[in-house]
Amino acid sequence: MLVVGIMTIGLSLFMIPPMVTDLSIRHSDWQVFALSALITGFFGTLLVLVSDWQGTDNISRRDGFVITAVSWISMSFFGAIPFVLSGHRISLVDAWFESVSGLTATGGTVLVGLDFMPPGLLLWRSILCWLGGIGIVVMAIIMLPFLRVGGMQLFHTESSDRSDKIVPRAGQLVRYIATCYGVLTVACLAAYAVSGLSLFDAVNHAMTTVATGGFSTHDASFGHFTQKSAIWTATIFMFLSSLPIVVYIRMLRGGSLAIWQDVQVRGFMALVAVFVAGLTLWRYEVRDAPLFDVFTEVSFNVVSIISTTGFAYGDYAGWGPPAIGAFFVLTFIGGCTGSTTGGIKIFRIQIMWLTVKGYIASLISPHRVHKPLYDGRAIDDDVPIAVLAFVSMLFASFMIVAMALSALGLDFQTSVTGAATALTNVGPGLGPVIGPTGTFASLPDTAKVLLAASMILGRLEFFTILVLLDPSLWRK
Amino acid sequence: MLVVGIMTIGLSLFMIPPMVTDLSIRHSDWQVFALSALITGFFGTLLVLVSDWQGTDNISRRDGFVITAVSWISMSFFGAIPFVLSGHRISLVDAWFESVSGLTATGGTVLVGLDFMPPGLLLWRSILCWLGGIGIVVMAIIMLPFLRVGGMQLFHTESSDRSDKIVPRAGQLVRYIATCYGVLTVACLAAYAVSGLSLFDAVNHAMTTVATGGFSTHDASFGHFTQKSAIWTATIFMFLSSLPIVVYIRMLRGGSLAIWQDVQVRGFMALVAVFVAGLTLWRYEVRDAPLFDVFTEVSFNVVSIISTTGFAYGDYAGWGPPAIGAFFVLTFIGGCTGSTTGGIKIFRIQIMWLTVKGYIASLISPHRVHKPLYDGRAIDDDVPIAVLAFVSMLFASFMIVAMALSALGLDFQTSVTGAATALTNVGPGLGPVIGPTGTFASLPDTAKVLLAASMILGRLEFFTILVLLDPSLWRK
Repeated sequence: MLVVGIMTIGLSLFMIPPMVTDLSIRHSDWQVFALSALITGFFGTLLVLVSDWQGTDNISRRDGFVITAVSWISMSFFGAIPFVLSGHRISLVDAWFESVSGLTATGGTVLVGLDFMPPGLLLWRSILCWLGGIGIVVMAIIMLPFLRVGGMQLFHTESSDRSDKIVPRAGQLVRYIATCYGVLTVACLAAYAVSGLSLFDAVNHAMTTVATGGFSTHDASFGHFTQKSAIWTATIFMFLSSLPIVVYIRMLRGGSLAIWQDVQVRGFMALVAVFVAGLTLWRYEVRDAPLFDVFTEVSFNVVSIISTTGFAYGDYAGWGPPAIGAFFVLTFIGGCTGSTTGGIKIFRIQIMWLTVKGYIASLISPHRVHKPLYDGRAIDDDVPIAVLAFVSMLFASFMIVAMALSALGLDFQTSVTGAATALTNVGPGLGPVIGPTGTFASLPDTAKVLLAASMILGRLEFFTILVLLDPSLWRK
Repeated sequence: MLVVGIMTIGLSLFMIPPMVTDLSIRHSDWQVFALSALITGFFGTLLVLVSDWQGTDNISRRDGFVITAVSWISMSFFGAIPFVLSGHRISLVDAWFESVSGLTATGGTVLVGLDFMPPGLLLWRSILCWLGGIGIVVMAIIMLPFLRVGGMQLFHTESSDRSDKIVPRAGQLVRYIATCYGVLTVACLAAYAVSGLSLFDAVNHAMTTVATGGFSTHDASFGHFTQKSAIWTATIFMFLSSLPIVVYIRMLRGGSLAIWQDVQVRGFMALVAVFVAGLTLWRYEVRDAPLFDVFTEVSFNVVSIISTTGFAYGDYAGWGPPAIGAFFVLTFIGGCTGSTTGGIKIFRIQIMWLTVKGYIASLISPHRVHKPLYDGRAIDDDVPIAVLAFVSMLFASFMIVAMALSALGLDFQTSVTGAATALTNVGPGLGPVIGPTGTFASLPDTAKVLLAASMILGRLEFFTILVLLDPSLWRK
């Protein structure tokens, strides 16, 4: 509980910048943030005070699961407070949806009229994204490997991390992550400012770009900006934010600069290249526009979806069936493991590919042992099991959520792509309602709650939540 | 080649019943079948003559793969001959599509105006389905376990089948399978006849029901029939045909009559019950009709899709979004392993479920060994690998085919459900074009070829084909 308490106090401190922003333009919403900060800070302090201060050096695995789930869920409630208190008639469900969408770096929104919103509230959305982003990376690099969720044991930077003692080394690792994440954000901010965005737009978009979240300060998202350089800044930083942060930590520690040698990064680049090249060629064929414009538009949108950011620039849903199919597939892919992106992720796709290859080899010569190698190392037996468990859960959840959404009366395309985009934390779906130019505003409340829950489930990689439902966890 | 030759001659013999049927009503199409039988028989005899008659007692695994793939593909070409020669202006692509759809027991059709077609051609479609059905069961029970495809090693009736010697025991097993399949067909035929179907309709529908194929002699499929008893006959026999044929063989051998004790059968019944109950309740709520009528309609369609038959009775696509979502999910499920059904199948779904459960258990207590049990027996380590390989291929193929179909200009729903329904050998998709009341007739030729190829790929469980593409198979 101590951890959750400290996080809650931290969250309340992050309500101060929006307050200051609103104060600076004398917008009455500053009171909203002051009040929210007080409430959140109060609960945080309460939690810290009632917590047991002993035994924090070695947290048990059960504590790890509980902390992970409880912190995300409680942050999503505290994060919703400013939306509820603000005078913009945002319902409780909408406020929670927006908060979850931010913290999980999904970026689907229920708010319309962003261009006329007070800056404090816009900044708060971006801050939620940004905090969620670093939370995800910390979870992916420290918590999930410790909990052995997702078959990502491979991604320990040192073998000593494999022990059950997590706290001593974690502090140092968090500092590295925060440094990389901070540097990336500042670099992105600077690049946006240089591209001609206002400081406010640059700050907001830098935060939601680096978090691969996708909240914008404009209803038209990047369609609002005319500068090509801003588009390319977004494309490049969405791409960079899809790479495993471990790569940057290695660079920071003075290690090799060779990002290209990382198997996962290579796979990611290959996939992006294939989709960008294919769609650019097709779109150049059918559309009478300069090649570079088409390339810009296609690269932006492909990277936006595969990185699970979900910024929109032009309405690719209006490009016709071939684009629809491609973007539907892109929704599932995701970036690299160890980044802020969602979806299946490259590492798992590579394991699936290696499993298929190894399986074919074993069909051809069944009496030989086939140990597929990943990056030169043999894959542990439990990694394919973890991947199968994840993929099974992803597709089962996808089916169940899609069925539930259509049971609520949503059309086929909205149900199917809505379920996919929430579980993979992408943001926009396809079709007239929740497509890149639409919002989730018009959906029934039950659908919003279901989608927000899906975002959390997908973000926490299913098992962090599912484990808590198993009675045997509590029996121990 | 000897095997393929014998099968080709066999196929030519099956062209005689349609010929006799057309002769009996003095329809000129009898010449079509006479000519087709001659051509097919000629090639079959040629193949037998040029084959090596030696060494057939022990076929190698490579031969097994080659025979499986070559026989399905060549049968699909020979099966198309009557369509091409008939005077109904069926293009080459359409003829091949129809033949593949029949042999793979998919049941999607490109032919319109079935009610006015000569009986010979209709009978030929049903025969293709029926032969495909028994072919699938033989493949699933004898060939695939021998080839170790699909993780179905569990399904050997005797442990001695696990040896690499297949031919000696295969003959006996084929006889058992043929007996069960034949008895089921005759029982179904009798039930249809008693329900008031004409003898011709009863024969045709019995063959395509037992094969879980789904070709009908009427454009309206089962919407043509007014007898409730015919509807229930279809429902019951589609259900029975979704059970593993091994269960029937066990009964035939005088073993236990307790179908219910089979883990897979139980899982299948539970799934069917959940979907039927849920959809019946919902539909009874929204529709003003007697409960039994609703129950009849829902049971028929749920069993039709989950058994991958694809008969239509009423247009469930018009029932509204909740039904759309449910039937989309049903498309993927399929019946039991060891039946004529397609899709993921219950056995694999159960393995996925056990993997998820075992994985959660291992997260909770990582230092204990978790060996999930299936039907009381420990699951071999290679079974989850096989399931992961299969699921990866199914979803990769689904994504690629859906993308390719939309690249050909088909709308989202047609692309997505068309890819699914072809790969799982169900038959109808969703939406106005290929939905339960539509046909594949209006699709572009490229899409038809792609879908037919997907049917074969799905039918042969991917790896039987993929293995052939691996150069190391040929190097040995």
